[in-house]
Amino acid sequence: VTSRADAVVDVNADMGEAFGRYRMGPDDELIELVTSANVACGFHAGDPRVMDATVAAAARRGVVVGAHVSYPDLAGFGRRHLAVTAEELTTDALYQIGALDALCRRHGTAVRYVKAHGALYNDLVADATLSRALADAVRAYEPGLMVLTLPGSLSATTLADAGLAVRVEAFPDRAYTADGTLVPRRAAGAVLATVEEIADRGVRMALGEPFASRTGSPVTVRADTLCVHSDTAGAVGIARALRRALHDAGVEVRAFV
Amino acid sequence: VTSRADAVVDVNADMGEAFGRYRMGPDDELIELVTSANVACGFHAGDPRVMDATVAAAARRGVVVGAHVSYPDLAGFGRRHLAVTAEELTTDALYQIGALDALCRRHGTAVRYVKAHGALYNDLVADATLSRALADAVRAYEPGLMVLTLPGSLSATTLADAGLAVRVEAFPDRAYTADGTLVPRRAAGAVLATVEEIADRGVRMALGEPFASRTGSPVTVRADTLCVHSDTAGAVGIARALRRALHDAGVEVRAFV
Amino acid sequence: VTSRADAVVDVNADMGEAFGRYRMGPDDELIELVTSANVACGFHAGDPRVMDATVAAAARRGVVVGAHVSYPDLAGFGRRHLAVTAEELTTDALYQIGALDALCRRHGTAVRYVKAHGALYNDLVADATLSRALADAVRAYEPGLMVLTLPGSLSATTLADAGLAVRVEAFPDRAYTADGTLVPRRAAGAVLATVEEIADRGVRMALGEPFASRTGSPVTVRADTLCVHSDTAGAVGIARALRRALHDAGVEVRAFV
Amino acid sequence: VTSRADAVVDVNADMGEAFGRYRMGPDDELIELVTSANVACGFHAGDPRVMDATVAAAARRGVVVGAHVSYPDLAGFGRRHLAVTAEELTTDALYQIGALDALCRRHGTAVRYVKAHGALYNDLVADATLSRALADAVRAYEPGLMVLTLPGSLSATTLADAGLAVRVEAFPDRAYTADGTLVPRRAAGAVLATVEEIADRGVRMALGEPFASRTGSPVTVRADTLCVHSDTAGAVGIARALRRALHDAGVEVRAFV
Repeated sequence: VTSRADAVVDVNADMGEAFGRYRMGPDDELIELVTSANVACGFHAGDPRVMDATVAAAARRGVVVGAHVSYPDLAGFGRRHLAVTAEELTTDALYQIGALDALCRRHGTAVRYVKAHGALYNDLVADATLSRALADAVRAYEPGLMVLTLPGSLSATTLADAGLAVRVEAFPDRAYTADGTLVPRRAAGAVLATVEEIADRGVRMALGEPFASRTGSPVTVRADTLCVHSDTAGAVGIARALRRALHDAGVEVRAFV
Repeated sequence: VTSRADAVVDVNADMGEAFGRYRMGPDDELIELVTSANVACGFHAGDPRVMDATVAAAARRGVVVGAHVSYPDLAGFGRRHLAVTAEELTTDALYQIGALDALCRRHGTAVRYVKAHGALYNDLVADATLSRALADAVRAYEPGLMVLTLPGSLSATTLADAGLAVRVEAFPDRAYTADGTLVPRRAAGAVLATVEEIADRGVRMALGEPFASRTGSPVTVRADTLCVHSDTAGAVGIARALRRALHDAGVEVRAFV
Repeated sequence: VTSRADAVVDVNADMGEAFGRYRMGPDDELIELVTSANVACGFHAGDPRVMDATVAAAARRGVVVGAHVSYPDLAGFGRRHLAVTAEELTTDALYQIGALDALCRRHGTAVRYVKAHGALYNDLVADATLSRALADAVRAYEPGLMVLTLPGSLSATTLADAGLAVRVEAFPDRAYTADGTLVPRRAAGAVLATVEEIADRGVRMALGEPFASRTGSPVTVRADTLCVHSDTAGAVGIARALRRALHDAGVEVRAFV
Repeated sequence: VTSRADAVVDVNADMGEAFGRYRMGPDDELIELVTSANVACGFHAGDPRVMDATVAAAARRGVVVGAHVSYPDLAGFGRRHLAVTAEELTTDALYQIGALDALCRRHGTAVRYVKAHGALYNDLVADATLSRALADAVRAYEPGLMVLTLPGSLSATTLADAGLAVRVEAFPDRAYTADGTLVPRRAAGAVLATVEEIADRGVRMALGEPFASRTGSPVTVRADTLCVHSDTAGAVGIARALRRALHDAGVEVRAFV
């Protein structure tokens, strides 16, 4: 168990998912509550204006910017599997990272990490070829960029084997199995019911303390960052409660970069 | 008149205008004949694979890469005016420059200059607001990037006033008026008829020597780079003849960057 | 002045402007309050699922469906002028009308009229070439389709000269000049301040009674349909007040088709 | 074996796969050699101008028009699997069929059949849910539309069970297994080597005569239409040879509709 004296965790959320005249997510409030922002790059959401405004807000508040790379699928919001080749993923990811980084430069910040979005995130978890393809993009762009993924996944191993700095995230609003994997979202009880439960679980994750798995047995999930789902109803309330609980538990909230 | 002993000129062409399974232009041959490549960034042409292959070929041959930024209009190939705001142009340009630069990094090169494409190029020529918006993008990305535009244009002045290094181009295949402006493409005689004429004119442009304007009176057009239209039938033959004529005239062909 | 005994007017609004996971406008409530729905066709908003759901809702309530055709510009929501040729407009419009009509067939309804959206609407008003291009599309698809436009405009004349059934609309929430044209939206006082004013003006428009122009002199604007701006804050309240006022004034609200 | 006296077959090819300034395929020559044209609808290829020109050419020559519906993936030319839901396929297909049919109306013709393109074609073959989703679209649009698919496939059965008129196609340029299924394209010998072989095989398919399967044993493949791959080098020569061979064998070439 981490001594509370030096407990530190990051809080990340998906942001910049508006597009044109379309709004999405409570970005104005969430940007005050996270330390890392996964910013859409135009492939599943976000356009250059939205990206610009999002990184400007992040820069003003010292929030670290990550490139939230996706399959090219605005109509499907990046949530549909697309059978891309490794080369397609590498080049699509480079394109997105560079585009976002250009807008970062305008506001004196920079892309500091990469996180896959939606279906791509899920596909990477168990696909070494795709994970290597993403690693190729990150190394080509800036080998010092971190990559955010699921702890214990093939993706995490593959990215680390490729020499990248891997950071892992946990989901305080989600049920876990006894072996530390996520309960699929559609299963009964997959999402915790109350803000209090979520905040308490987040603290345990930050401290490396056990919590009850779905079957009741204790499980410990260590993570560099806690993900707040910005598309959940009540996302802002959850983020606020989480931040308060972390503060009360003596956990410092600081960007993982 | 430039002394031939130190005459130098660049040769540029639009490249990377394929998309998906669609081919466009004789890139494989032209890349051997130019010193600067204006590379499409996905808004009027080009996708991340095409961009990647184009900058890889440029890097192998020491050809300098420029970002050929456009209005977002794949169906119209960027040739239709779109009424964008200054902020839309700035952010769209940053997005494109950064995306291309990311693919450049993979091949050990970088975007070194920016040139507007199609309708945007034409609109910029006489629009100070749009020119400043492009300047904002370039300065935000990398103040050292050069910008390629039309000599004597409001665009050239405005970009220079914004502190950017402006480079100007001439079109050896086109007729000019007595005051050094291009004869509109649709006018009779706007495009020179033979490869020999084009090559001869290119040499005169490189040397700062006068040539016959449309009305017959002599005109002098100085330019840092000569543009070869890659979508002209016979583009490769024109580029070859131009290179040979420049060589025979003792003009060194070298990137303007 | 129309005898109240036989006064009839239509109420139309833009609908189906969501896209993918993005929502837009209070469609669920507005569909209960209009008699004609201008349904986006995928070029500025709307995707096949959104279009399907919108025409399904319209069909259930007996609301007439119109194709709300646009320039192809999702990022700009169709609000930016795009320099299309007549042939581009004709074919783009046919594509959109047919696509929407296909989804109508699934729900036992059909496209009954065409209305241009955003920048295209504004461009058509004063452009006979574009208006003829739209007329070509409508006649090719179904000469019996009506076209909705601005009264007294070159567009209205041109479409009528092309043999089409033109219907005109008025905007109860907007100030008019003494000669019956709209005060530009950005001018001071261009939008009426209260729901009551809007409802009262809508009744006068339906009855062909004069109301105060911007300068105070009376003006009469006759229209087949009253447009409720679905993107105005309070659109539902405005539509409700308008419907109630029309009812109280003895005006029948009925589709213009 | 079909009596040659009444042997009839259709010849189909993919057409209208250009986009914007991009060309694709020898449409001008192929349109003279086919009886049915599978016309792209803008999702994998084709834009409204290309669609218009393609159906205009088909109408002039009495070639039947089919809607070549696809996943939405211009960058991937519809050749990448996309995990769509049944409802997404139904609505996407309706959108495409209607859009193409609108352009057909301009030229006095109509969509008469539907064929899936690329990855969607392959996915449908073995997926009853997707096949039913396509059937839903076709029935909603026009129950009399035929659907073109692979003989003996789950798709053929499912579409027929849904009450649709199914027509099946064979590929004269491809090797077949002893049980009448296609040898996968990447296998050695999957594509026949000579124009003569292809033409001969096409005649056998039209007559219902056996030909040598990959293993040498005879196989019989009956089909309503023979598909000529328009993206094969030499497609026009193949189509010409096939037409000549069919003529010489006394087989009438006539649209299957």
